[in-house]
Amino acid sequence: MPPLSPFSTPHGLFSSMTDLHAACQHVPTPDTACQQAISTREATLTKPAGSLGQLEGLTAWLGGWQQRRTPRLENILVLVFAGNHGVVAQGVSPWPPEVTTQMVHNFRQGGAAINQLARQAQAELRVVPVHDLAPTADFTTGPAMTEMDFLKAVQTGYNAVPEECDLLCLGEMGIGNTTAAAALAAALFGGDAMLWAGRGTGLDDAGVRHKARVIETALTHNAALLGDPLETARALGGYELAALLGATLAARHKNVPVMLDGYVCTAAVAPLARLAEHGLAHTWLSHCSAETGHARLARAVRLRPLLDLDLRLGEASGAALAVPIVRAALACHTGMATFAQAAVSERA
Amino acid sequence: MPPLSPFSTPHGLFSSMTDLHAACQHVPTPDTACQQAISTREATLTKPAGSLGQLEGLTAWLGGWQQRRTPRLENILVLVFAGNHGVVAQGVSPWPPEVTTQMVHNFRQGGAAINQLARQAQAELRVVPVHDLAPTADFTTGPAMTEMDFLKAVQTGYNAVPEECDLLCLGEMGIGNTTAAAALAAALFGGDAMLWAGRGTGLDDAGVRHKARVIETALTHNAALLGDPLETARALGGYELAALLGATLAARHKNVPVMLDGYVCTAAVAPLARLAEHGLAHTWLSHCSAETGHARLARAVRLRPLLDLDLRLGEASGAALAVPIVRAALACHTGMATFAQAAVSERA
Repeated sequence: MPPLSPFSTPHGLFSSMTDLHAACQHVPTPDTACQQAISTREATLTKPAGSLGQLEGLTAWLGGWQQRRTPRLENILVLVFAGNHGVVAQGVSPWPPEVTTQMVHNFRQGGAAINQLARQAQAELRVVPVHDLAPTADFTTGPAMTEMDFLKAVQTGYNAVPEECDLLCLGEMGIGNTTAAAALAAALFGGDAMLWAGRGTGLDDAGVRHKARVIETALTHNAALLGDPLETARALGGYELAALLGATLAARHKNVPVMLDGYVCTAAVAPLARLAEHGLAHTWLSHCSAETGHARLARAVRLRPLLDLDLRLGEASGAALAVPIVRAALACHTGMATFAQAAVSERA
Repeated sequence: MPPLSPFSTPHGLFSSMTDLHAACQHVPTPDTACQQAISTREATLTKPAGSLGQLEGLTAWLGGWQQRRTPRLENILVLVFAGNHGVVAQGVSPWPPEVTTQMVHNFRQGGAAINQLARQAQAELRVVPVHDLAPTADFTTGPAMTEMDFLKAVQTGYNAVPEECDLLCLGEMGIGNTTAAAALAAALFGGDAMLWAGRGTGLDDAGVRHKARVIETALTHNAALLGDPLETARALGGYELAALLGATLAARHKNVPVMLDGYVCTAAVAPLARLAEHGLAHTWLSHCSAETGHARLARAVRLRPLLDLDLRLGEASGAALAVPIVRAALACHTGMATFAQAAVSERA
C-alpha cells in the first residue's frame, strides 16, 4: 500500500505556501504489486514480448496508480480550466482577451474541438473558469498573483478532481497563456526566452521576438521570487495554470492517473517535477505540441509524449486524443488470449 | 472527376506482369474540389488556423480519396493477409513457421491483439490466408515466387477490397516476413543489409547479423530481377506482401483511402511508390515501428508516420490504433461550430 496522504480531502484548503509545498513534496508511490501482476500477464499473451511497445507501459501505469491488477476505464473526466492574463496588455496575442469567455461559452454549447474529442473518447467534459475569468496582474511589473489568489486557484483545481476517476485528462483555455507558460519554463529551466517563446495562436516572427522580450522583462521584475518553483508559478503563471497544478496534485493524492495536454499544461505542472523527484510519475504526456519549446520542456520534466500530431490548440485536445490509445492498450491486455489458451507455440 | 480506371473490377485478373505494371502506373488522382471544400470549412471553425495539425490533413485526405465533401467513416475494414516463407529454413526467426497457421486460428477465435484493436476501432476484421499458407520458395537460391503465383497473390489482395469502404486498414502475419521486407527494402532503396535487418519477433544481435547475411545472399542470387520493382517484389517478397500490394492498388482504383501498418506493410507497397510518382498518395502510414529500417523506409517512400509507439507486432495493429485519431479528426471537422455560429471574435 502506498502511504496515505494527509492531503486527500477534496475540501482541504491550502492555507499557506508552506502547506502547498508539503503536499507537493510528500506524494504517494504507485502500487508496484499491481504493476508486476500486469507485467506478468502481459508476458503470457499471444505476441512477441514487448511488441505492443508503449501500450504495455500504459497499462502498467494505469494499474499502478489505480491500484488495480485489472485497470478500469469507465469514468474518464476531461477538465479544462480557463483563465485570463494581465500580460495581454503587452500585445502578446493576436486574439482579443474576450475570446477566453467566448470560448467557455462555446465549450458549454458543445461547439469547440474538445467537445467533439471528449465525446469520441467517451469522457465527461467539465469546464472550470478560474477566479470568474478575472485577469491576473501583468507580470512584467510584478507577480501575476497574490499568495491568496494563487492558493485559491490551486485549490479550485484540487477540488475539481473527484474521488472516483479512472483517468483524468487536463487542459486549458486562456488568451495569453502561452506567454505565461514560456515565462514559467524559462524561469524553471533556464535558457534564452526565444527557446521557450512560440507562435501561440498565430504570432508572426516579429510577434514572437516581442513575446520573448516581454518574458525577459517579466523574469527581471520577478527575479526575487524565482528561487522557488511554487513562487515562480505564482509570479509567472496564471489562474488556470495554478488550477492545473492543483488538479495534478489532487490526482496524485487520490490515486488517479493523469493525461496531460500540451505546452501550457506541461509548464503548469512542471513545479511538481521540481519539488519531488518523481512528482509527475502519475502523469503521461499526451502529445508533443507544435509550440516552440514543448519538446524541450518535455525533456526537462522527463515525460515522453505519446503522440506528435502538430497540435497547438490546448483545450485538453491532445489529452482527449490519447484516450483511445489508452483504451486500446487496456483492451489488448484484458482481451487477448494467452499462448496456452490459443495453443500457439512459443519461441524456440 | 478523376479518370476512370480500367482496373476497377473486383473480378479482373492480372494475367501478366505487364498488365500489373499498367495498373500500377495509371492511377487516379484525388478529388481536389472536395479537398478544397474541406479546407474552406476548416478555416471557419472555432480554433486558430491550422491548430489541429495533422488532424486537418487527415480529413482533407479522407475527403479527397472518398470524393466526398463531408467524408464518412461508417464502413472501416481491417484486412490482415497471412503467408509463409521458405526463407525460414535459413534460421531467420526465433519462432517456428507453424505459428503463422496458429495465429490465423487465434485471429478467428478473437484472441489476438488485432481482434481487440479492430473492435475498439469499430472496424470489421477479415483475415486472408494467401495461397493456403503454403510457403514461398527460399529466396536465397532464386525468386520466392513464380510469376503466376505472385500474380495470383496480388489478385487475392486486389479482390479482398470491397467496392464500398470508407477506410481500409492493412496488415499482415507471417513468420519470417521481416526478412522478406528487409530484402525488398534493400533491393528497392539500396544500402547495407544491416540498415534494413531488424530484430523481428525477437532476434539477438548475432541473429540480426545472420539475417543480414541471408538478405545479402538473396540479393546476389536474384540480382538479375532487381531492376524492376514488381520483379523485385516477386523475387524477395512473399505471398502476403504481394496481397498487400494488390489490396493497396485496388483501393486506389476504388477510391478507398488506406491506413498502412508497419515495416512489412510499408515494404510490401513500396513498389507502388517506385512505379508512379504519387503511387502511395491515397495511403497514410499509421505508425513508425520499432523495427530497424522502418523510419528509413518511411522516408524513402515519402510517408510520414502518424504514431510512434514502439510497436513491432504487425497484424495491422498500428493501422487499427490510428483509426480513432482519424475518427476524431472527422468529428472535429463535422461537429465544431464556426466563429459566426459561436459568436467568437476572430483574430485582430
